[in-house]
Amino acid sequence: MQSLEEVRAYVSEHLVSLDPKEVLLDEANGLITTEAIYAKEPIPSFVNSSLDGFALRAHECAAALTNLEVVETILAGTLPSKELAPGECARIMTGAPMPDGADSVSPVEATAPTPNDPNRVVIKEAVTLGQGVRTIGSDVSVGDLLFREGTVLSPGALGVLAAQGYRHVKVKGPVRVGVLSTGDELIDVTTPLRPGTIRDANRHTLLALCREQGFIGVDLGIVGDNETDIRAVFVDASTRCDVVVSSGGVSMGEVDFVKKVLAEECEEMRWFQIAIRPAKPFAFGLLKEKIPFFGLAGNPVSAMVAFELIVRGAIRQMLGHSNTHRAPITARAGAPFDNSGVNRTTYFRARYVEGASALEVVPQSAQESHQLTAMAGAQLLGIVEPGRLIAPGDPIEILAIDESALAYALSMQKAAS
Amino acid sequence: MQSLEEVRAYVSEHLVSLDPKEVLLDEANGLITTEAIYAKEPIPSFVNSSLDGFALRAHECAAALTNLEVVETILAGTLPSKELAPGECARIMTGAPMPDGADSVSPVEATAPTPNDPNRVVIKEAVTLGQGVRTIGSDVSVGDLLFREGTVLSPGALGVLAAQGYRHVKVKGPVRVGVLSTGDELIDVTTPLRPGTIRDANRHTLLALCREQGFIGVDLGIVGDNETDIRAVFVDASTRCDVVVSSGGVSMGEVDFVKKVLAEECEEMRWFQIAIRPAKPFAFGLLKEKIPFFGLAGNPVSAMVAFELIVRGAIRQMLGHSNTHRAPITARAGAPFDNSGVNRTTYFRARYVEGASALEVVPQSAQESHQLTAMAGAQLLGIVEPGRLIAPGDPIEILAIDESALAYALSMQKAAS
Repeated sequence: MQSLEEVRAYVSEHLVSLDPKEVLLDEANGLITTEAIYAKEPIPSFVNSSLDGFALRAHECAAALTNLEVVETILAGTLPSKELAPGECARIMTGAPMPDGADSVSPVEATAPTPNDPNRVVIKEAVTLGQGVRTIGSDVSVGDLLFREGTVLSPGALGVLAAQGYRHVKVKGPVRVGVLSTGDELIDVTTPLRPGTIRDANRHTLLALCREQGFIGVDLGIVGDNETDIRAVFVDASTRCDVVVSSGGVSMGEVDFVKKVLAEECEEMRWFQIAIRPAKPFAFGLLKEKIPFFGLAGNPVSAMVAFELIVRGAIRQMLGHSNTHRAPITARAGAPFDNSGVNRTTYFRARYVEGASALEVVPQSAQESHQLTAMAGAQLLGIVEPGRLIAPGDPIEILAIDESALAYALSMQKAAS
Repeated sequence: MQSLEEVRAYVSEHLVSLDPKEVLLDEANGLITTEAIYAKEPIPSFVNSSLDGFALRAHECAAALTNLEVVETILAGTLPSKELAPGECARIMTGAPMPDGADSVSPVEATAPTPNDPNRVVIKEAVTLGQGVRTIGSDVSVGDLLFREGTVLSPGALGVLAAQGYRHVKVKGPVRVGVLSTGDELIDVTTPLRPGTIRDANRHTLLALCREQGFIGVDLGIVGDNETDIRAVFVDASTRCDVVVSSGGVSMGEVDFVKKVLAEECEEMRWFQIAIRPAKPFAFGLLKEKIPFFGLAGNPVSAMVAFELIVRGAIRQMLGHSNTHRAPITARAGAPFDNSGVNRTTYFRARYVEGASALEVVPQSAQESHQLTAMAGAQLLGIVEPGRLIAPGDPIEILAIDESALAYALSMQKAAS
């Protein structure tokens, strides 16, 4: 048996990073830049008002209570029609271009109408030169570094790039993850149940896990235990996927053709027995074009845990992330987590105890690995080393396996502190 | 001015929950069930082996070292061809159907080949009745409650439903969020820059924020400041969106037609001045069919903060989530967060200090709300009450605005504890 760390290291060494690709801006959220991006347009690109008020010459309003003639109103998106002459001002809206001749803006709150003359305004407070004006490039100058190579593009970053006229951006990804299930016994959700058949749960779970992570999930279907079909699906996958994840056909005792085909199709193919429970059997290799192949056990809970512990982090590495695998969090056991007599680290499906005073977790009742229903309700995995019994009240390391579980963990840690 | 809490409460009271909808299983991840779901098929649906070994009659192997005849090999996905007679057994794989006559399975590790007779096997250890056998319904029985009404469907839950032959599921959502930007000065990413024009950043940022949350983002484009176009886009949105989010046209001083059209098209239309910075101006109303309209300020940072503080949680309420708005986390200020002299709560764009011994945060340098670049690099919002100065070393409440920021916060809280 290998440790989880050894398996992760083996996989990590053999992964090839995704090639840089130009993608449309709106498809780049969460992806990582493969080159530094510089400003190509100044922001703002023209001198404009930062507030609603009156554009004027500051030296004419150095004292309070100046009276000026209002020659026009400049809205955002329109152009001024004339240059201001001495004694003139223009009503101006936030973001509207400054008229020639003006150098400052008095906020509307510091002005008053002139009685009986709608074309004049009183500037009640002295104006300092440049007040209320955004100069060209005051936010961003041409040539400014916007994003370093290796930046994870956030929604805000996409806004910056849009504001800079970038329609495409060069990134790693998005990653297309092909998901298949192998086994003659498997049928899909719409096929009538017959004796000996089992409905495939894994593709649905694995595709959803991929999509949650922002990966593109490609459904490669169910493949029977025969060489021709298995080879065909790998050939197909290599043309339209960056990663292939299969479940079924990796246990020691299984009589099937997945292993045979993989041995022929893959470089660096390795069959692991990981010292963890569930998800002991695991396979990894490289298909043509160095496309990584992850072989998970057929049993649904094993497949899901292997995805969480190995595949997710590996794909994040390919996408260029530095934080690949989830970091454990310390919680408190609310019930025994019993791994005594077991020579592997157990990842117990577990859930939070609502209403507890601290971040307290208890194992789900059904721990046998064919019992998918327990996984469905599990919010986290409780990690217990070989042979250990964690007693109620003791600390336990957990992995929160979704964002709302993370958020809950945080809010409870806060309540406890 | 209203407090953020008052505005959230007003919005919350006027929201209508999304109607229950049948969606395809693979589109239901993260959505909430609107009815209880019960098992309609037993799992397993036939008696099968839980391991690789030999199917046999336990009473024939009550003592160690029994010798049996191997009459066939049963693979997963195949059917047994015969009933076992006394003294017979069948080689069987995990998940394969048990043959008639057999009641237990000896694991392959507890057996040995018979020298010189490939058709016989030695069962080395005594077998207990039922060992290695999964009975019909041992994981799930017909009629079992699978999921309560109000369950958030996880990837594991989708696996359970697939295993149960559910092709569709009744949920709230997915929610379609229409996003538009208003303003004659706005141009999109591909239009050449002219004097007086500004590239629209907000739609790209808001659409990405929506998609990150699992909402369907619908791009309603840029709409100029004229009544006809604005009215047309609202009519269009009401046919294909559940929510409309607009930016621009909600400030007090703005001369535009959004307000006029909204006043006519919306019920319960309210214009707020929220006691926060940025994101002070905010509008909310109900379009036809009770479609909520959120009017955000045009400035990119205000729009983003208003989405985080109000819109995101409101849409989560419509989807049926009980945890709607993000919960603050306590961190430590690594630099001053100065809100003295300001009569509103400031949400400072901020970032974590890498390498700090605890969860330490510092404000981004550019805090003016037109400076989008600061938002792009912000990982969180630091919350500082009116008039307060938070000194370095003091605790500060923060909102982590993405999952990796959450994960980082957690790992640092752990390191500090």
